[in-house]
Amino acid sequence: DLRLMQMPVGPVAVFGASNFPLAFSTAGGDTASALAAGCPVIVKAHQAHPGTSDLVAQAIARAIDRINIPHGVFSMIHGGSRAVGEALVKHPLISAVGFTGSLVGGRALFDLCAQRPKPIPFFGELGSVNPMFMLPGAVSERGEDIGRGWAASLTMGAGQFCTNPGIIVVMEGEAADNLINAAKDVLADAAPQMMLTDGIAAAYQEGQKRISSTAGVRSVLTSMCDQRQATPYLYETDGATWLADESLGHEVFGPLGLIVKVSDFEQMLEIAKHLDGQLTCTLHASDDDSDYGRALMPILIRKAGRILANAYPTGVEVCDAMVHGGPYPASTNFGATSVGSMAIRRFLRPVCFQDIPENLLPDDLR
Amino acid sequence: DLRLMQMPVGPVAVFGASNFPLAFSTAGGDTASALAAGCPVIVKAHQAHPGTSDLVAQAIARAIDRINIPHGVFSMIHGGSRAVGEALVKHPLISAVGFTGSLVGGRALFDLCAQRPKPIPFFGELGSVNPMFMLPGAVSERGEDIGRGWAASLTMGAGQFCTNPGIIVVMEGEAADNLINAAKDVLADAAPQMMLTDGIAAAYQEGQKRISSTAGVRSVLTSMCDQRQATPYLYETDGATWLADESLGHEVFGPLGLIVKVSDFEQMLEIAKHLDGQLTCTLHASDDDSDYGRALMPILIRKAGRILANAYPTGVEVCDAMVHGGPYPASTNFGATSVGSMAIRRFLRPVCFQDIPENLLPDDLR
Repeated sequence: DLRLMQMPVGPVAVFGASNFPLAFSTAGGDTASALAAGCPVIVKAHQAHPGTSDLVAQAIARAIDRINIPHGVFSMIHGGSRAVGEALVKHPLISAVGFTGSLVGGRALFDLCAQRPKPIPFFGELGSVNPMFMLPGAVSERGEDIGRGWAASLTMGAGQFCTNPGIIVVMEGEAADNLINAAKDVLADAAPQMMLTDGIAAAYQEGQKRISSTAGVRSVLTSMCDQRQATPYLYETDGATWLADESLGHEVFGPLGLIVKVSDFEQMLEIAKHLDGQLTCTLHASDDDSDYGRALMPILIRKAGRILANAYPTGVEVCDAMVHGGPYPASTNFGATSVGSMAIRRFLRPVCFQDIPENLLPDDLR
Repeated sequence: DLRLMQMPVGPVAVFGASNFPLAFSTAGGDTASALAAGCPVIVKAHQAHPGTSDLVAQAIARAIDRINIPHGVFSMIHGGSRAVGEALVKHPLISAVGFTGSLVGGRALFDLCAQRPKPIPFFGELGSVNPMFMLPGAVSERGEDIGRGWAASLTMGAGQFCTNPGIIVVMEGEAADNLINAAKDVLADAAPQMMLTDGIAAAYQEGQKRISSTAGVRSVLTSMCDQRQATPYLYETDGATWLADESLGHEVFGPLGLIVKVSDFEQMLEIAKHLDGQLTCTLHASDDDSDYGRALMPILIRKAGRILANAYPTGVEVCDAMVHGGPYPASTNFGATSVGSMAIRRFLRPVCFQDIPENLLPDDLR
């Protein structure tokens, strides 16, 4: 008599994201899926929104009172220093960690989790450039529409979405230029947008300097950021330059777009093969692009947790089929998603019950 | 239009176990589940059975020829030095590792996987003492049967099962002594058994010396091992001694049993709480033991991947409900099992397809 049940893994530490103070912070997706799994949650409040974090934590505390469950089910700690987060992930009673944030900070916490005497899983989302591949048929048919759509997606929330499409890959030529000019026109009219924190704004300006000073990169649209006010930038380079410089594949968090003009489809395939792990990859394809699409798909499937066609990756539906994750560094656990109903799996472990008498079985297994 | 599909993670490195040259080595559970997931497999042959590994690899090669799939789907490398395994897990194209073996060797490979520029999951089974808790009603009713059953399980395969029940916990008294004497009688008659390798036999003898030289541990049955011939040993200690010395909870791979006599049920609960992660925990309980059982179950569920009642943990059925895993060090990934149909999950990653035209979707999603 063998019966299986998924059990909670134990207390979970959640590091809220800076960019979603509600949907992915104190009471966000990580907290919800850990609580749903039956795990107590300790939130490390994000220092970008301590007040919002407190208001939400107070609402959770009232809910706990109302339904009469132990207060220890949820707690929150504050503190901007690295020592606070380190102490949390090293605590012997913490069983798993949910994290959304930067590659550097996330990797440091990942390493601490792996180095513990008893290692624990670190479910981190550490960044993605979300490339879009523009196939020739689609670019000819509706390049200007695609360019405008890209510009809108790139500037959504001042470009501070995990799924912001920071790179497009397109075959060089007149049709590509039409697409680029359409995007440029929209972006040139974009009003400055307030970024979430001074730190994010400073990192955006550093990222912009890094891209603009890379040999072989040309400016398409330049603007003037003012402290926390972000304005869009657009750069272009050729496929050979992109392939030769790994840093051109690194995320710039904000409304900065990099256009990679390839000489032919073979070079587009090469670029796809050289991608780091991504949350999303997008194809823009017409009926004429089927052969190209069939050649690209097997590569993109290996690179990302979500593949889109003729759409823009910003906007993540919370549903059964959603995957918000992907190969490293998009996620530190490629088997996991942090959005959608499968997110609960991160905080469950299976237990098999063999020949256990009815009165000792968990209620749900009787 | 959102569709989800589980995809193979990529090439998987499999480190065969020494103790199951067929069921958990070249063509064993890890290889089978990785191939079933669609992942190519590279086996690191176990140096304890290179000839068996080669015969099995040749059979796989013939099967690959017969069904006409690429030869790269399966390959095998030999080599007893640590450098071979290290090179394998550090190779950039390896996406995941399956391992069954020792805590020291496994942890070293786990650390290498976590330290890679792009970390990969290491699914390791690193040892377990598989404690059995003998509740008073069961010990009074059928203590001698339980003692004989334990002795048979302890010596199965010269004690070289992952699920070998190396520790029993029992309340001191006459009934416990009857159980122990019954086990001792069976073990005293056990013929010497050949161990798998010289190294395992040497480690067994070292483990026996470690236990026998621990203050507060008394010999119940001693014997004389001869090189690779293993004979059983039985030791006993009291609950306070066990609780004070963490090393008494460490695995001795072979037919060595440690009896922990507790003064009362509270001490039995303390011992359960102090356990490391286990593949299995077992209860022996009669109808009179319900209160004890209900107090122990929530603790044991946190400690092991499989809980048994009135049974012995050696013997692992390959089925949907099986869990061969557990909290560290039983497994390095508490959410995973290496036996049973859920084992395939270790080598799959979900991919979401959004608005993908029919002709570009994987066949199974159309």
